[in-house]
Amino acid sequence: MTLTFLPKGNICSPKEFKVGAAYCGLKKSKNLDICVLYSKLPAVAVAAFTTNKFRAAPVEFSEKIIRAKKKVSAIVINSGNANACTGLQGMENSQRMAKIASEALGISVTEMLVCSTGRIGVQLPMEKIKNGIESIIASGLSAKNGHKAAEAIMTTDLSKKECAVVFNAENKKITIASMTKGSGMISPKLETSFPHATMLSFITTDAVIDQDLLTETFNECVQNSFNKITVDGDMSTNDSVILLANGATGNKKINKGSQGAEIFKNALFQVMKKMAQSIVRDGEGATKFVAVETINARSEKDADLCSRAIANSLLCKTAWFGGDPNWGRIAAAAGYSGAKFNPAKTSIDYNNLPVILNGLSVGTPEAKLASEVAKKNIHIRINLAVGKYSATIWTNDISYDYVKINAEYKT
Amino acid sequence: MTLTFLPKGNICSPKEFKVGAAYCGLKKSKNLDICVLYSKLPAVAVAAFTTNKFRAAPVEFSEKIIRAKKKVSAIVINSGNANACTGLQGMENSQRMAKIASEALGISVTEMLVCSTGRIGVQLPMEKIKNGIESIIASGLSAKNGHKAAEAIMTTDLSKKECAVVFNAENKKITIASMTKGSGMISPKLETSFPHATMLSFITTDAVIDQDLLTETFNECVQNSFNKITVDGDMSTNDSVILLANGATGNKKINKGSQGAEIFKNALFQVMKKMAQSIVRDGEGATKFVAVETINARSEKDADLCSRAIANSLLCKTAWFGGDPNWGRIAAAAGYSGAKFNPAKTSIDYNNLPVILNGLSVGTPEAKLASEVAKKNIHIRINLAVGKYSATIWTNDISYDYVKINAEYKT
Repeated sequence: MTLTFLPKGNICSPKEFKVGAAYCGLKKSKNLDICVLYSKLPAVAVAAFTTNKFRAAPVEFSEKIIRAKKKVSAIVINSGNANACTGLQGMENSQRMAKIASEALGISVTEMLVCSTGRIGVQLPMEKIKNGIESIIASGLSAKNGHKAAEAIMTTDLSKKECAVVFNAENKKITIASMTKGSGMISPKLETSFPHATMLSFITTDAVIDQDLLTETFNECVQNSFNKITVDGDMSTNDSVILLANGATGNKKINKGSQGAEIFKNALFQVMKKMAQSIVRDGEGATKFVAVETINARSEKDADLCSRAIANSLLCKTAWFGGDPNWGRIAAAAGYSGAKFNPAKTSIDYNNLPVILNGLSVGTPEAKLASEVAKKNIHIRINLAVGKYSATIWTNDISYDYVKINAEYKT
Repeated sequence: MTLTFLPKGNICSPKEFKVGAAYCGLKKSKNLDICVLYSKLPAVAVAAFTTNKFRAAPVEFSEKIIRAKKKVSAIVINSGNANACTGLQGMENSQRMAKIASEALGISVTEMLVCSTGRIGVQLPMEKIKNGIESIIASGLSAKNGHKAAEAIMTTDLSKKECAVVFNAENKKITIASMTKGSGMISPKLETSFPHATMLSFITTDAVIDQDLLTETFNECVQNSFNKITVDGDMSTNDSVILLANGATGNKKINKGSQGAEIFKNALFQVMKKMAQSIVRDGEGATKFVAVETINARSEKDADLCSRAIANSLLCKTAWFGGDPNWGRIAAAAGYSGAKFNPAKTSIDYNNLPVILNGLSVGTPEAKLASEVAKKNIHIRINLAVGKYSATIWTNDISYDYVKINAEYKT
């Protein structure tokens, strides 16, 4: 299953996707803040949305289109304003954004999705939005604007997050690409029937694939990628993962149980994993990337609970920032996680270096442990020794800059 | 129900309690790190302990005594080392601490409780502990050492936490007092049959009171005080609330349903509330005291979930530190809390100033909101408008100093 990441991969790497971006006046920084993604061929669309009760208007709008299983031709996305907690006016504004874009593109409004990200509780300045959308479309969408689009969806992100992979399936070269944003208010939650995510991620592919298979594959990949990251434990009101499959490659349809289905799933997972991890690496103020792996738990849920409690522990996160191998905080977090286990049988490793064996310090010298925790990448493994389930949560540390960014954040 | 806080109230304000404190070599700072609290009359004892799976040895030791409903004459407490994650050796060390103290005091080891707080995962240096206990008892316990004892139990605390109230019940003057420590790793959890807490709090009283009534009253007061605070969302392995009632006042026994029972409960609650709030005010790096009150929820649990999610939200806590009236973060936290409500009917106030009404910004000028969030004390009220239950969680902000303290903490 050869899979190649393209060196300059971007959201327009798959065939027949075009995009345009502009600054319309939403961001004080005057960076790009609006973009329109367009597929010449109406695409099969699948998505995952936040389950936050205060869901933003664009989430409500887009979810309706997805639930109706409409084909989607375009997505209009703004950053700098979340259009969340904006009531009926907010709903009207999302609809209007879709309408303005659909009219300028000459498509039906039911083929449009809308996404917003940024400050909560402020109505969108619709004149600026309108001018932005119209100028983007008037100046012509292009497959060359991929990198600009990835920039236009950023908020507190420090780096663009985009990638594309190519692979062969059903005798055709297929491409999957993504542009993603997210840096804070990142903490997806498991155990929902309708999967969700806590950032914006757009995924395009030119594959022809059975819609049910696509939905199933998408859901599984979301659970194992975006739903396995946490930056600050805060779940957002807006965030969405949307995949458009426009079929431009013209391959023989990928069906369930085929080898192509396996290849496709692996490629999609690699793209999502890369994007999910890039959110964590660019987490607000993050200086470290930490994988918290729980093994031999009694259930998948217990494994997730244990890894997640540690990944969200403020005391663990600040210790990682300080390079302090304070494994007592890890044990304490495992202890209150709700996972079932016997402390006297539990072991903990840092980057494969044993720290606790059967509930007791193995006496690895503090300096040796400290040198592991001083690394940019830390892998923590907790062996609960009571079952066969495992789960890894990807997270980062909490630094002075995290506090700075969030004590002073106003878009 | 007149109730007076004594100006110099301390753990020895109730009759027949004496204490001694020393530095035995556990703290690098060379501050006092060990103390012995003694009651001349064996006392009825009730307690609440952490439910963390990695419970410390002294918690296991003391819980056995409490469960056996033994009368308690003394507590030996050390700071600087938690004796947690220390296995069988740790259990033996707790027992030995109790034995050393009981022998020096000339009492039975079954009349002793043991508490430890500090760094996790390091064995207690028993020679130092032994010398400490013996020198404290050799130099004589005294009711004048109350303030010193409150100092000896501190770890990252910046201030001593102690108080005493006097009131009349059953025609006698009764006193309830407490010394408490706690500043980080503070996040008690509800819904346990055996209540627990996440700090050390010692409460003494000279009242004569029915043991069942005392247990019931104690549990109710713990739920409404220590179980309503959070500093960082991290539940500790060690912490304990212990109440000793030695009956030295010789009042007619306070029985269930009496006026004295009501007066006693109110007094005990006032002491616990003051101590619980003082932990939050002295929370690691805290610059603000925040009360998060949810009203009109569908159940007590929902009210608690909503207030607690906001109180633990890193984004809310950093916004408070920055004086940023970012109510979107409060709405988002309520939205993922798990509480059932309709966003379109939800309202939020800051210090009685309306922020959101029926899910929408009321347009209070940003500067006016900012001036409320700039205050030292912030009261946030969320009206879910779906029921009649309410709950308040007391918390604080997260500052640069929180990160500093916890990135660099080593006792």
